[in-house]
Amino acid sequence: MSAWTVRPLTEDDWPQVWPWWRETVEAGETYAYPLGSTSEEARALWTTNPPGLTVVLHDEGGEVLGTATMGPNRPGRGGHVGTGSFMVAPHARGRGVGRALGEHVVAWHRAQGYAAIQFNAVVETNAAAVALWTSLGFRVVGTVPEAFESRRHGRVGLHVMHLPLG
Amino acid sequence: MSAWTVRPLTEDDWPQVWPWWRETVEAGETYAYPLGSTSEEARALWTTNPPGLTVVLHDEGGEVLGTATMGPNRPGRGGHVGTGSFMVAPHARGRGVGRALGEHVVAWHRAQGYAAIQFNAVVETNAAAVALWTSLGFRVVGTVPEAFESRRHGRVGLHVMHLPLG
Repeated sequence: MSAWTVRPLTEDDWPQVWPWWRETVEAGETYAYPLGSTSEEARALWTTNPPGLTVVLHDEGGEVLGTATMGPNRPGRGGHVGTGSFMVAPHARGRGVGRALGEHVVAWHRAQGYAAIQFNAVVETNAAAVALWTSLGFRVVGTVPEAFESRRHGRVGLHVMHLPLG
Repeated sequence: MSAWTVRPLTEDDWPQVWPWWRETVEAGETYAYPLGSTSEEARALWTTNPPGLTVVLHDEGGEVLGTATMGPNRPGRGGHVGTGSFMVAPHARGRGVGRALGEHVVAWHRAQGYAAIQFNAVVETNAAAVALWTSLGFRVVGTVPEAFESRRHGRVGLHVMHLPLG
């Protein structure tokens, strides 16, 4: 049985996150973040300001296995809908880290009183992510065709996925 | 026949834009921007950095009747899809200002080589906007339910709208 801890990301965590954050973005299959970002630029992008939050999941030895962001998808009159982003260390995949982070993010939004969670851009060929979010109750609201330039597949769709809460 | 000019927004235009930018956001029917923004905060939000652009449309006398933003919807591997936002001065509505700006934004993206344009959050009860974008060829890809807190209608959906180019 794994003993994982989820807690807010600190500056000290970033050196563990950055190598696989970069590898994931540059691999070109899952995220439309700027390419060629420096470590500092990436940390600024990934660090969510209040009322949002960025967390890490680490194991008993303190090794960071994944990270997630959460918080309002839009300000003002859209602030009752949350959103999130997720990254799992490549060597830790297939062990349920993404699911643990996903459940954490759903529970956080529920506890904070959000009415729903919206993911704006789930790459349709990212089968693991689509299956995970579907298993947590999200449904595809629509798919923007050819909106993501996948390195392997060329232009593929981006799903908008949605989970009502409460 | 109206003689309208569309050109980049300058700092000098903002005092004309700000009163109805604020009025439009605070009216609570069309945009999920932060509520209670200062003029400077709003100007920073509305001013798009290169490769994007913010423009104004003014009449022969120099009065600004509307403004629009344009540019990539996402960075990196999503940068081939553009987006835009639009505001028309309340006293200039119904005269085709929104359509002129919409056509300008579509032409701009086409000229810059974008593959498509995506609007992320068209309020479903904003009938004028939905009808205008539909008449320009956009289609609703999906609707996120209850994602916008309309002052008059309560929680209403946000359309994701999409126009392929080229």
